[in-house]
Amino acid sequence: MFPRNILSNILNKSLMTLNFKKEPETLYEPIEYMFGIGGKHLRPLLCLTSFNLFSDNITDDIVYPALALEIFHEFTLVHDDIMDKSDTRRNQPTVHAKWGDNTAILSGDAMSILAYRYLALCPKDKLQAALKLFTDTAMGVCEGQQKDMDYEDQAFITMDEYMDMVGQKTGVLLACSAAMGAVLAGAGEEKVKGLYEFGYQTGLAFQIADDYLDTFGDQKIFGKPIGGDIANNKKSWLLVECTHRAKTADRKDELNALLALGDDERERKIEAVRQMYIDLGVRESAEEAILECHAKALKALEDAGFDEEQTATMTAFAEQLIHREK
Amino acid sequence: MFPRNILSNILNKSLMTLNFKKEPETLYEPIEYMFGIGGKHLRPLLCLTSFNLFSDNITDDIVYPALALEIFHEFTLVHDDIMDKSDTRRNQPTVHAKWGDNTAILSGDAMSILAYRYLALCPKDKLQAALKLFTDTAMGVCEGQQKDMDYEDQAFITMDEYMDMVGQKTGVLLACSAAMGAVLAGAGEEKVKGLYEFGYQTGLAFQIADDYLDTFGDQKIFGKPIGGDIANNKKSWLLVECTHRAKTADRKDELNALLALGDDERERKIEAVRQMYIDLGVRESAEEAILECHAKALKALEDAGFDEEQTATMTAFAEQLIHREK
Repeated sequence: MFPRNILSNILNKSLMTLNFKKEPETLYEPIEYMFGIGGKHLRPLLCLTSFNLFSDNITDDIVYPALALEIFHEFTLVHDDIMDKSDTRRNQPTVHAKWGDNTAILSGDAMSILAYRYLALCPKDKLQAALKLFTDTAMGVCEGQQKDMDYEDQAFITMDEYMDMVGQKTGVLLACSAAMGAVLAGAGEEKVKGLYEFGYQTGLAFQIADDYLDTFGDQKIFGKPIGGDIANNKKSWLLVECTHRAKTADRKDELNALLALGDDERERKIEAVRQMYIDLGVRESAEEAILECHAKALKALEDAGFDEEQTATMTAFAEQLIHREK
Repeated sequence: MFPRNILSNILNKSLMTLNFKKEPETLYEPIEYMFGIGGKHLRPLLCLTSFNLFSDNITDDIVYPALALEIFHEFTLVHDDIMDKSDTRRNQPTVHAKWGDNTAILSGDAMSILAYRYLALCPKDKLQAALKLFTDTAMGVCEGQQKDMDYEDQAFITMDEYMDMVGQKTGVLLACSAAMGAVLAGAGEEKVKGLYEFGYQTGLAFQIADDYLDTFGDQKIFGKPIGGDIANNKKSWLLVECTHRAKTADRKDELNALLALGDDERERKIEAVRQMYIDLGVRESAEEAILECHAKALKALEDAGFDEEQTATMTAFAEQLIHREK
């Protein structure tokens, strides 16, 4: 098995070979821009790490399908940013803010097609399984995004609804990334399923950690203003849990009054809700929930019969994701 | 070979098995709606007709990939209608007019994924070739749509630019449909290429015929108001050709004055431009251009060595497309 930085280098070299300088420029420039403003490339890295559990033979027909996961992820970001009317991502203007909605729709569509084009470069005998995994995942991501939008119009959602929604929005693509590595390596069904579950649970932990950092992170490290979720009444893990606890603690009216505060009282609102999260033990429970998902992820590896070295590699990957500060 | 109505029946039966009644309803309802309001299903029918040149063994793993072409086509319509701000299609409200832009973006995305899901049901040994053909085509369609939008902001375009643009917007998907049938039947490269060129040229003829009918068709049969292209200064085959002829005929200023007329003089504008198309021989040339593309389509079949019966079947298909009145 290769160390993480070797896999990362392989990935970065291949990323640089992707050529988006084609005609018409109006279509391809936004695609190049999205890749230019970076990203953590977690999904292809997870895919290669997973593949590398079974094989050291990391060739183009493995790396390009891994990159397809990144291209698909970037496509969803471009379209999500239109739908969510987000003007900034990674401290840069979003595609629709820079070029308008029409360009963002069409460049996003082109990115989704490019994802399939690179996936199609996988070994021929693995293609049908890889494509099925990929399309099932992509449908899940769409369903998750739709649920997210639907839930915006609801006063409350249950924790089950929250976990199901983020499972689809974030979980299934990390699950697919981990499982894809195993599929491309020709691993058996038990291993594929184990890595899928590992990726899914790690995705949940990752999302809860993201929600956590939005309220309790360090702005300098996190890269965006702290408290945005609270200010926007976003149904984060923290708010969903707090809504239920506030009822039991007879602080429901207080919470509702805080949520009704306008942008002119943004700082007071963030501070007060943050304090309620601490008072009601929501902060602590979030930390526990992250660890619980992480434990389930590791359990899935154990159940699938991975050996010590394989388990250590995947555990390190997951821990880097959930103990991050940005 | 089966007669056309048999192929059409096979297709319609399989179309009815597509089940879009899934959760969340907000995502799937618009997809079901798009298929409910019909369409001519030309692309899957062309694919099956092409497949049937080589084999009578039309099974689900042929029909579902054929339907993928229709699903992809419907996806492009949903997104194009947002970009073009079109509120009506097939005499019904478009998806974005009925449910809003966000739903149209996301349901369109889901449809594009479904297209790959159904394509993936093709015979395993054909999948890589089928997927490459499909993604190359899909990229072409995106490029064509982008060029169409770019050209809207240009005062004039050349006939070469027009033909290239409609070749991508309409030609490549019909080309892909015809070629896909051959790929799925395991036909040789020469036959695949011949059918691709046949579909491409038929697509051009189809589009010029569409432009022609928009100005010279019978409204009752065509299904939408005649003259819409003229009223909107749309760069149709007729207008592109007329722009160049008007220059030679010293009627450029007259044409520009007509194009500058507002919606309050819609009828006068349509009538005057229509008359200029007749005066300058543009109408007649359009009829010739349609036949020229049709001839190229048939020549491609001849060059690829199709026999008499095969050629007759494809010729009948093409003629139905270009001699249509709607």
